[in-house]
Amino acid sequence: MFYCRFLYNGTLRYGMVDVDRVIELTGSFLEASHAPTNSVHYLSEVQLVSPVDPKQVVAIGLNYRAHAKELKLALPPEPMMFMVSPSAIAAPGEAIRLADGEHRIDYEGELAVVIGKEAYKVKADEAFDYIFGYTCAIDVSDRDLQHRDGQYTRAKSFHTYKPIGPWIATNLDPNHLSLQLKQNNVVKQNTSTEDMIHHVDRIIETITDDVMTLYPGDVVLTGTPSGVGPLSAGDKLELSIEGIGSLHQPVERA
Amino acid sequence: MFYCRFLYNGTLRYGMVDVDRVIELTGSFLEASHAPTNSVHYLSEVQLVSPVDPKQVVAIGLNYRAHAKELKLALPPEPMMFMVSPSAIAAPGEAIRLADGEHRIDYEGELAVVIGKEAYKVKADEAFDYIFGYTCAIDVSDRDLQHRDGQYTRAKSFHTYKPIGPWIATNLDPNHLSLQLKQNNVVKQNTSTEDMIHHVDRIIETITDDVMTLYPGDVVLTGTPSGVGPLSAGDKLELSIEGIGSLHQPVERA
Repeated sequence: MFYCRFLYNGTLRYGMVDVDRVIELTGSFLEASHAPTNSVHYLSEVQLVSPVDPKQVVAIGLNYRAHAKELKLALPPEPMMFMVSPSAIAAPGEAIRLADGEHRIDYEGELAVVIGKEAYKVKADEAFDYIFGYTCAIDVSDRDLQHRDGQYTRAKSFHTYKPIGPWIATNLDPNHLSLQLKQNNVVKQNTSTEDMIHHVDRIIETITDDVMTLYPGDVVLTGTPSGVGPLSAGDKLELSIEGIGSLHQPVERA
Repeated sequence: MFYCRFLYNGTLRYGMVDVDRVIELTGSFLEASHAPTNSVHYLSEVQLVSPVDPKQVVAIGLNYRAHAKELKLALPPEPMMFMVSPSAIAAPGEAIRLADGEHRIDYEGELAVVIGKEAYKVKADEAFDYIFGYTCAIDVSDRDLQHRDGQYTRAKSFHTYKPIGPWIATNLDPNHLSLQLKQNNVVKQNTSTEDMIHHVDRIIETITDDVMTLYPGDVVLTGTPSGVGPLSAGDKLELSIEGIGSLHQPVERA
């Protein structure tokens, strides 16, 4: 199943995507009580927004073998986490606005996990019970600020630096998905989530087992594969993940 | 004025503190519509909880001159920010539960800013318009994880590692407040917020001017002065900030 949020006649609505149509729901797909309505729209007639509005965005650094190799870094023995502001979340198709014209600002295509149930003290073997589904995410990162600050929060928290979508796919096996990012129709990242160093279940355990609580709608970014590179105003990005769909983002100067 | 949240007869309520009493409010003090009720309780009869339940907790690293000197580090030219999970927030008097018995886990007494209005593109000279008030915070930090991860989020996000309170003081000048932390009645940190490298108005500008949005109830930790040190189970901490009050936290093993 594919779940989305969209604007129609100026109001926020929840939907289930069926090929080229959206079946409107009575309420949020994160609530047990939601049900389909008789309202059906063509996808082309609605404006998709980010499929969730998370309380927390937790990200994992350096989580693909080939990416660690291209950076000449040792494989981390456990998932390394940091947080970025939910105000960085952007809608599918919304322009990534580069906040600084002098800095190197990179794209990073990533598989994003959407949490479905409040999760604390969750072990890897029960992690999937707490996951609602998966979506595409581009983790836009200001490398100059990342190096200057040491901490990654600022470099990755500017408005529009975390587009997610276009919708959430449920009932996926996240460990064997092809992921491809194109910049101006040129393939830049092309891998399978099999290359992850720490898989989704282990990531959820590390975050929640004794550290923090994850809440319904929270987003966990699982790290980027090799092939990251700099953005320029005018670029067109397309991130496709098998079983989910494609996220198309233009790039402009803020 | 002093604003708090408390449990009474098992329900969460909002109050205004008047010496030894709490005047109950009709709703959250963060909403313009709140008003006092006729319900008044003795402070000793209510159970204080954290004065806010933030969406975001943003922290500033290395922000006191004497602390930078004791660590032999250069003064940072701008506020360095990171984020921790709101699930680390604890109530006044709630035990800090040390998650790891082998790691060095330190206290850090800090002035915390509570945001009152959604803040984006806010300059230093208008920052105080967006601040609701100030409270005491202890930023409990697992030094082993801080060094191992590089990023600070995990080291500082364990449940109970961010006690705040006991209430929020409004109409304070945050730049000239004495701050004292005692561990088992021994003074360990003793300074004035005058020693901050970047003051509160500049911190709010750096976070919000072009990076992220801060929301009502969000908490900004402004950094710790010199004198940090390790915690042991059985410790009693007392953090007092001029014009606010005192936060008393016991320490135990998780």
